[in-house]
This record gives sequence, C-alpha cells and structure tokens, in this order.
Amino acid sequence: MRRIAFSVVAVATVAVVASTAATSGRADEEAAPIYGVKVPAGYRDWKLIAVDHLVTGKVDQLRAQFGNEIAIKDFKEGNVPFPDGTIIAAQHWTRVPSEDNNKVLDGAFPGAQSFVVGSVVNVQFMVKDSKKYAATGGWGFADFKDGKPGDEALHKTCFACHLPAKDRDYVLTHYAP
Amino acid sequence: MRRIAFSVVAVATVAVVASTAATSGRADEEAAPIYGVKVPAGYRDWKLIAVDHLVTGKVDQLRAQFGNEIAIKDFKEGNVPFPDGTIIAAQHWTRVPSEDNNKVLDGAFPGAQSFVVGSVVNVQFMVKDSKKYAATGGWGFADFKDGKPGDEALHKTCFACHLPAKDRDYVLTHYAP
Repeated sequence: MRRIAFSVVAVATVAVVASTAATSGRADEEAAPIYGVKVPAGYRDWKLIAVDHLVTGKVDQLRAQFGNEIAIKDFKEGNVPFPDGTIIAAQHWTRVPSEDNNKVLDGAFPGAQSFVVGSVVNVQFMVKDSKKYAATGGWGFADFKDGKPGDEALHKTCFACHLPAKDRDYVLTHYAP
Repeated sequence: MRRIAFSVVAVATVAVVASTAATSGRADEEAAPIYGVKVPAGYRDWKLIAVDHLVTGKVDQLRAQFGNEIAIKDFKEGNVPFPDGTIIAAQHWTRVPSEDNNKVLDGAFPGAQSFVVGSVVNVQFMVKDSKKYAATGGWGFADFKDGKPGDEALHKTCFACHLPAKDRDYVLTHYAP
C-alpha cells in the first residue's frame, strides 16, 4: 500500500511542475542554439512593456512584451544602451474572436468585434551581455515554442531583424504609456 | 538668492509628480461617482492578466488587464468568487500602425502589418468589497480618462455589462496562458 500511495504523489508532483513550466517559464529547460539562452523563470509575471498586434499572410497574433526590473527601469527612463542583465520577453498568442464578449458588447456597440488571446504560439527573449554577445550588439536571442528552442537556422535570423533599431540599442518595442 | 533656488526645486518636484501620475497612476486623484473608487497607485506595473483587441464603429483599441497580487493569485488558481481586496485594472490604448515595424517585417513577411499602442484612451478598475458593493455583485467600478473619472451616467452602465459573466464573479477577462 505504501508503494502505491507514493506513486500517486509522484505523478501529482510531475503534473504540477509541467503546469508551472507551461504558464510561467522555467530556468532548467533546454538552451537556445548560438546564444545559449534559456527560458527565464517567472517571465510571465514581469512588468508589461507594451502590447501589439501582428498580421501577416500566415499569422494573426496578439503580443505582449515583458521586462525584468533592469529593463523596465531603463524603458521608463528612456536610457540606451540597456545595461548588462537586461532581459526582454515577448509572448505571442493567436488572436481569436470572443463570442462571449461580442454578446456583451452588442447592446452598447452594435457590430462590435472583440478579439482575445488563444494559445501561445512562441516566446522570444533578448538578453543583454555586452561581452558575451559583442558580435550581435550585446544581445543574445532565443525563440521557444512549447518550451523547446527553435533551430540554429532560425536563431541566425534574429539579429538582422533588430538591426534597423540600432539607435535604440536594437530594441524594436517602445514602452506603452 | 535662497528664495529663487527654492522655487526651482518646487517646480521640478511638481513635474516629477505629474509624470508619475501619467504613467503609473496615483492614489490621491478624484474618486469615481457612485463607487468612490480612485486610481490605484502603480497599477501599470501590476502583473498582466491578458490582452485583447476591440473594434467597434467608433473605436479600435489594444487593451491590457492588470491585477493586484490578490487578483493574480485567484486568476492563476481559477478561484471564484474573488476575495475582498481584489483589484483588476484595464488599460485601453488606440491601435495604430507601426511603419517602423512594417519595414523590418517586410523582408520575412511581405505585406505584414504591425499595429502598436498609441495613446491611452481610458483606464477602468474593478474593486472587490463584498459588503460595500453588495448591490453590484461585490464590485465597485471606475472609469478614468486622463486621470479624471467619467460621470455618474457612465458609471451606472458598468455592472449591467458585467452581468453575463455572473458565473465567473462578473469578470469578463480570462487569464492568458
């Protein structure tokens, strides 16, 4: 009896850990290629930098950027370059219509359309370490889907996309008021 | 000389306070009618509940909901009703195209459209106090524009809109993964 009870507890523990990884990020997951960046623990609870909406032929996403305390301080003060230790996270969700919200809104706003987040598509990180990542503007990049990092080919594209924001230390996002 | 120097310091202090009010909310502003709710200090730095996108004939908004620690705990655990002390904030921004982002994206995603936040349209709050607000499901409501609360007629409409979410303690927003 004791052995059976112990197994049940073990299974329950695994379930809790998996749930935590999915919702808030863990520090012990696989590292992204090239830069070696892992998912920072607890990033989903970091302060919000901004939100945006991206539509391409393939995707329709609502997005949010979060910053660790170092990032938020510099965003608020408008300082560039960001200091070593800065981490910026970008969570991307599918954008889906909310029938519930549309019913609520229809009285006040006939024809109103509300879109909410669906599932998480991917999450990206920028980590500042001016020595370690000197070749890429001081930033290490990472892209994760379901907790697994993308491949090396994907990670080779990161820095080029951020080059146009060189005068803002390669950070595309502006702090939302 | 001493009097002049003192005046300069006083002006500088006022400027800092005004800036803080615009970005993070202050506790000493005017209270909303009916419910007496003020803008909670620092709400812009609270943890993110979710984001959404609302389009009506009149508005096109990106929106984010923030929760104080009591709110976040219950959202994550899926508990209803929310306990007294819960505060939920909803910040609404105009949704505007980002030409900068579109240029960056065009190589990888031809025709991509990026929309970011413009200015703050309004911010709304729900404050749980089951005794004080017993007549409205235990919630006090408030709507502010540029730090000033809306009128009594506006605040009379709040609870009716939240009625369809009675089985979720009148909270329309779901926690984003």
